[in-house]
Amino acid sequence: MTTHLDETHRLDLVSWVESAQAADTDFPIQNLPLGCFRTSGEAARPGVAIGTAILDLGAVGRASLLSAELVALVTQCGAERSLNPLLAAGDAVLLELRRQVSLLLRADSSEGTRARSRRGELLVPRAESELLVPARIGDYTDFYASIHHATNVGSMFRPDNALLPNYKYVPIGYHGRASSIVASGGTVRRPQGQTRDDPSAPPAFGPTRRLDYELEVGAFVGRGNALGSAIPLGEAEGHIAGLCLVNDWSARDIQAWEYQPLGPFLAKNFATTVSPWIVSLAALAPFRVPALVREAGDPAPLPYLSDAANERTGGIAITLEVSLSSTRMRSEGHPPMRVSLGTFGTMYWTMAQLVTHHASNGCNLQPGDLIASGTVSGAAPESRGCLLERTWRGTEPLQLSTGETRRFLEDGDEVIMRGWCEREGFRRIGFGECRGVVAPAR
Amino acid sequence: MTTHLDETHRLDLVSWVESAQAADTDFPIQNLPLGCFRTSGEAARPGVAIGTAILDLGAVGRASLLSAELVALVTQCGAERSLNPLLAAGDAVLLELRRQVSLLLRADSSEGTRARSRRGELLVPRAESELLVPARIGDYTDFYASIHHATNVGSMFRPDNALLPNYKYVPIGYHGRASSIVASGGTVRRPQGQTRDDPSAPPAFGPTRRLDYELEVGAFVGRGNALGSAIPLGEAEGHIAGLCLVNDWSARDIQAWEYQPLGPFLAKNFATTVSPWIVSLAALAPFRVPALVREAGDPAPLPYLSDAANERTGGIAITLEVSLSSTRMRSEGHPPMRVSLGTFGTMYWTMAQLVTHHASNGCNLQPGDLIASGTVSGAAPESRGCLLERTWRGTEPLQLSTGETRRFLEDGDEVIMRGWCEREGFRRIGFGECRGVVAPAR
Repeated sequence: MTTHLDETHRLDLVSWVESAQAADTDFPIQNLPLGCFRTSGEAARPGVAIGTAILDLGAVGRASLLSAELVALVTQCGAERSLNPLLAAGDAVLLELRRQVSLLLRADSSEGTRARSRRGELLVPRAESELLVPARIGDYTDFYASIHHATNVGSMFRPDNALLPNYKYVPIGYHGRASSIVASGGTVRRPQGQTRDDPSAPPAFGPTRRLDYELEVGAFVGRGNALGSAIPLGEAEGHIAGLCLVNDWSARDIQAWEYQPLGPFLAKNFATTVSPWIVSLAALAPFRVPALVREAGDPAPLPYLSDAANERTGGIAITLEVSLSSTRMRSEGHPPMRVSLGTFGTMYWTMAQLVTHHASNGCNLQPGDLIASGTVSGAAPESRGCLLERTWRGTEPLQLSTGETRRFLEDGDEVIMRGWCEREGFRRIGFGECRGVVAPAR
Repeated sequence: MTTHLDETHRLDLVSWVESAQAADTDFPIQNLPLGCFRTSGEAARPGVAIGTAILDLGAVGRASLLSAELVALVTQCGAERSLNPLLAAGDAVLLELRRQVSLLLRADSSEGTRARSRRGELLVPRAESELLVPARIGDYTDFYASIHHATNVGSMFRPDNALLPNYKYVPIGYHGRASSIVASGGTVRRPQGQTRDDPSAPPAFGPTRRLDYELEVGAFVGRGNALGSAIPLGEAEGHIAGLCLVNDWSARDIQAWEYQPLGPFLAKNFATTVSPWIVSLAALAPFRVPALVREAGDPAPLPYLSDAANERTGGIAITLEVSLSSTRMRSEGHPPMRVSLGTFGTMYWTMAQLVTHHASNGCNLQPGDLIASGTVSGAAPESRGCLLERTWRGTEPLQLSTGETRRFLEDGDEVIMRGWCEREGFRRIGFGECRGVVAPAR
């Protein structure tokens, strides 16, 4: 488990980037998440979020402010326009990058003094940047690791058989679509598809009428494993470069009609939005919590999914929020409205267990692969991570601040996901935003 | 539909490559499939199979024996070590490549005379080459398009509910794993996983005891479609660069335990083998047949999956064969034994319908993506494309030539898939082989 605390976590670290001192910033000097960005007329390149700015790692490399190995890697990332070369370098290299970038951004280090003197060259305002999908994602896997979500959805799709017998043994997952993963901030077109609301009539083809979001946490794979080899649980976190937020947009009417027997397909693969910053497990080290304590009578995980460290600190206390803003809310000047608030600490399976299970048959994970948790829902209605659950299949509509109601998403609706960690004695660590606006069907 | 016949299909075309004249070759001058190969000490590059040789497109490009546009594309393929640049160029460019390569390999053309004079430079013996996965596969999708397979497997996994109500409306598919797609000729390690044969006992983790192959036909995507746009049925084949054979290795005990509710995952993603040659729809034009005629009472496909051309010529009459060879058979000098023989003409959905359905929600297909048909099984027991069906879940074991029996695959078993098209008045067009040997679990 990645629970080691060091100099980079110190509450009293101060950056020469003033905006990083703001109490509510997602990106203090203790965070240092990696992303890929572009400014007008320039090519995509790697960067680190700091306050309201981005530290341009391409420029840092050209200024030789990192070690030679890291300069070579960030240069390669620039050439490939993705973080993959850095991710592939593995956890020790990423930790060393974190150490060196922390020194560069500190107000009290000689490295910081040097960097500060070149701030015009090294810093880019985030507001002037386009943030991209940070990695070239070879394969995207989506799990189903919230037992509350699985139970809620199961009770709607299979009333007699809500939680299937395998759930407490197998971290259930499936492969998603990598090509349609998009960056935060764009539009997502309402998909068309086959639906059959009336089982006595034939299905019809048309725009989904039950468009939904799903709030998830994603892990970007760092170092991969060779085909045919497994990843022991104790090593799993060494293969995770960091986390992001994921909106697994879903068309519930298409899903209900198509998903048996091979799982969701067109109901999900029209778009998946990811937040732009990869927040490292190192940055999240102060926020580790025990894995969910299983209820009395629940089976213990099989040995390959079980060890003491995972039980003790396998969870991560990330607070997760979904807000919604309709076209009318925006035009009438209403702020986005919070729709749910939950925590990643309620998941039945930890990220390490998901990674280990995924590779347990010898499946090769590769740098840049995205492994998402599945919808994060807690026990309370307010913590349910999708509208299907939040409005209980549309039977309990949400009331927006304009008086509008929502069962599912309407055209023009913007979904805004946020995630952050807070704990006494540490700076707040945030994930930034995962946003998307629903565009009408073509 | 790609049914146009031209000069390149003529039965009387003769190549200066003598081995292309053999009556039983998979690769006469009328075929000209694209692949990616490597010879010892040299980098991967694109090639065309011809008789027992490979026309080295890298060398053809350096000799400027193709048009400038094609030379640029094959050079780019060499740089990327995959066919993706050619696939992305689209069907018109691939057809022009076919036309020019046909002229280069003809015994009676001036282009052929020039090429023949440089044969030492342009031709590589296939036996001395390593054949690779031909494209960089971004996403791999697996369908379920044989109604016989769906009915057989359904009756085993869900005795009361074999063919689900959506089957005759929805071309059922799911996303597979791209990272573990491997080239023909290697070993596939027996995967470990959770299984629960006895529902009254907890599951156990260990090597699968029900390892299976699945015989499928795969389509490599050529030109892609933009996210949010659909592909009308009449244009679908223009997005298919060509076909190959696919072995979708499956662990049936892992599958039975894990697959609900989100579909197959670790039961499939440990390995998928593809044959090395992309046989173009142009080469297959003489072998087009009507789409499967639906039984009386079956619903018509919804309008987006239906047009007259698809009904008339949407099928392709590919004969498909699976052979098996055990360690003992090889050591005692027995040849591989044919286990099944069927035809791709029995599929419920055509390749064009699979492509159109896949993009119907706006999902973006990309050059090099692999879309597999699902197990190809016909009505007759001899035409069933996997052991699960062929031995009826192990209840009707196969007898091998050594007296050994097979319910599922044993360590050391080699599975050999072949596919070919034959029709009076045309040369036989073959796919080459899709082979793999089962290695013991780690």
